[in-house]
Amino acid sequence: MTVGIVGAGQLGRMLALAGYPLGLDFLCLDPARDAPAGRVAPLLHGDFTDRRLLTRLGRQCEVVTFDWENVPVSSLRAITRAHRARISPPIAALAAGQDRVAEKRLFERLGVPTTRWRAVSSRAQLTRAIDALGLPGVLKTRRFGYDGKGQAVLRVPADAERAWRALGTVPLLYEEWVPFDCEVSIIGARSTTGELAIYPLCGNVHGAGVLRLTCAPFGPARWQRLAARYLTRLLRHFRYTGILTVEFFVRDGRLIANEMAPRVHNSGHWTIEGAATSQFENHLRAILGLPLGATRALGHSAMINLIGQMPALRDALAVEGVHLHDYGKRSRPGRKVGHLTVVEPTARARDARARRLLADLAVGVRIP
Amino acid sequence: MTVGIVGAGQLGRMLALAGYPLGLDFLCLDPARDAPAGRVAPLLHGDFTDRRLLTRLGRQCEVVTFDWENVPVSSLRAITRAHRARISPPIAALAAGQDRVAEKRLFERLGVPTTRWRAVSSRAQLTRAIDALGLPGVLKTRRFGYDGKGQAVLRVPADAERAWRALGTVPLLYEEWVPFDCEVSIIGARSTTGELAIYPLCGNVHGAGVLRLTCAPFGPARWQRLAARYLTRLLRHFRYTGILTVEFFVRDGRLIANEMAPRVHNSGHWTIEGAATSQFENHLRAILGLPLGATRALGHSAMINLIGQMPALRDALAVEGVHLHDYGKRSRPGRKVGHLTVVEPTARARDARARRLLADLAVGVRIP
Repeated sequence: MTVGIVGAGQLGRMLALAGYPLGLDFLCLDPARDAPAGRVAPLLHGDFTDRRLLTRLGRQCEVVTFDWENVPVSSLRAITRAHRARISPPIAALAAGQDRVAEKRLFERLGVPTTRWRAVSSRAQLTRAIDALGLPGVLKTRRFGYDGKGQAVLRVPADAERAWRALGTVPLLYEEWVPFDCEVSIIGARSTTGELAIYPLCGNVHGAGVLRLTCAPFGPARWQRLAARYLTRLLRHFRYTGILTVEFFVRDGRLIANEMAPRVHNSGHWTIEGAATSQFENHLRAILGLPLGATRALGHSAMINLIGQMPALRDALAVEGVHLHDYGKRSRPGRKVGHLTVVEPTARARDARARRLLADLAVGVRIP
Repeated sequence: MTVGIVGAGQLGRMLALAGYPLGLDFLCLDPARDAPAGRVAPLLHGDFTDRRLLTRLGRQCEVVTFDWENVPVSSLRAITRAHRARISPPIAALAAGQDRVAEKRLFERLGVPTTRWRAVSSRAQLTRAIDALGLPGVLKTRRFGYDGKGQAVLRVPADAERAWRALGTVPLLYEEWVPFDCEVSIIGARSTTGELAIYPLCGNVHGAGVLRLTCAPFGPARWQRLAARYLTRLLRHFRYTGILTVEFFVRDGRLIANEMAPRVHNSGHWTIEGAATSQFENHLRAILGLPLGATRALGHSAMINLIGQMPALRDALAVEGVHLHDYGKRSRPGRKVGHLTVVEPTARARDARARRLLADLAVGVRIP
């Protein structure tokens, strides 16, 4: 059985590595010849809109998934025209996640608390949005945002003009700034059979818009229940198949949805060593209609992203219990090139380990 | 960094899957176009004696290892003539393991207790060997034995003639039959830096010469100490690099070495989920001179080999906590096509799980 992956980044790579033990084969499509998943699985090298390659993917695979939320919806539709591969997760979920306005409306419709927002497509609308929601706020592109890209924080009225000049060429949305206590995410799978499996809540710390640290399990049981309830609404709404992730701000014990990602998620990388079944394996099980694996945590995990360049392999492996994941990418400032995970028997031991590792790696973030 | 693997079986496959997260690349050589490792890593398809391919492997890789103990020593020597790749584990250890007589002599020289034996290269020598060691006994080919192949058990005098006719065309060895209480193996790594790391003892059950079940950790601390001492002598003798495995019979609390394998071993597959660092990762760390990972057990593991054909994926994954490993091989009677592992908090829970799984799979072996 061959699973197609549109996009051959680190998520595709870890999907393939999780799928091989299940006896699955993989075929990726990516415009980068040296894409991370292309080093562990066959790669169709070409543009995401290359009809010939999309048709090949659709013909050679039983099911096609994607490892990037900005894959053109039209590309996935083109794959279905090969009349073989199913697309999973559903295209509708991808489409909703690609448009921040559609996403916000969906959250509201399903009773998932989210930040207040206004669509902005003119300078005048931006002024009205700031009047309505106040400052500070965040101006975001409706589409193609990830890892803090396509965003500008507005703190004082004068910031509006600068932000408009930077982003105003495309449809935007203005959101209130939530002075959050912490950020969490919930990751869960729904299988083609309707079976659900939801992971323990993740506590996330970002730096410069990029995830730096995830600790899991995280937070009180009440947060877990709330997050799982909201996630379940979304999974059911889409008759979703695969892993879906929702990120929340936590403010005074309330969960406020920030965004969703219709895919395995960086904040779930700890599940490779830290959960009974990894998010990658459960994504594959879910899209293939196989029984889902247990999502329980095996201990207390911390996952630290390695940004820009990998530490020396020798140094990283010298630290007992560190599980290293090198994505095989070239170094580049701000780029996610790998991550490491530690699993400890207690949250206290985990936090102590994470603190030392963050210091060693000179990552300036604090344990949540 | 590219690691070459001579042989692209399931051991090579699991080596590659363990090495990708470390950022390593792999290149395999195997005469089978559909070899298991060739589905997860680039494959040079050709004979183990193909000089052109061996040279390519030697030029493209920093280090070359092997996943099969019957790789011709001359092939590994040919690789070194490319003047780039090191061979690891050392060729001398492979050579010793390929010749049962050399292996027995080495055990004796290093004070590792082993079965009594006689070299047999004529019918008359066989008679003298039986006179000396008695019956029952086992007649084995000196070379190219694995999984019970090239062996005949002699129970009564009349068996000698039959066994001689079946095997007598090649050099042989006659060994006393050890009525063992159980079978164990010890797996350990020595790094190019001289660092040692030894896993908890494995309790093994064979059926028709093929490993069916491994439970680990296994046996009293005294066995662990004895086995580790013997293994360490062998590791130091060869200035070994990589994983080395020694199998023992246990009889009245004594460990009697049966054979060694200069490679990752089937009885160590439980370490993928059941140990802090898998044997595959530690083999790679050892041959690359990287710090070795912790070998401690994370619980009580049972590994069951899947022989002949894989169970239905759906059924296997429906059992909570089962980690499935499908080698991507075609079904064939007696063939190792995969394995599954469970890790439980206690030995008792592990044994209960294993008993149920063995019954479900209709594997007729008993928990040791």
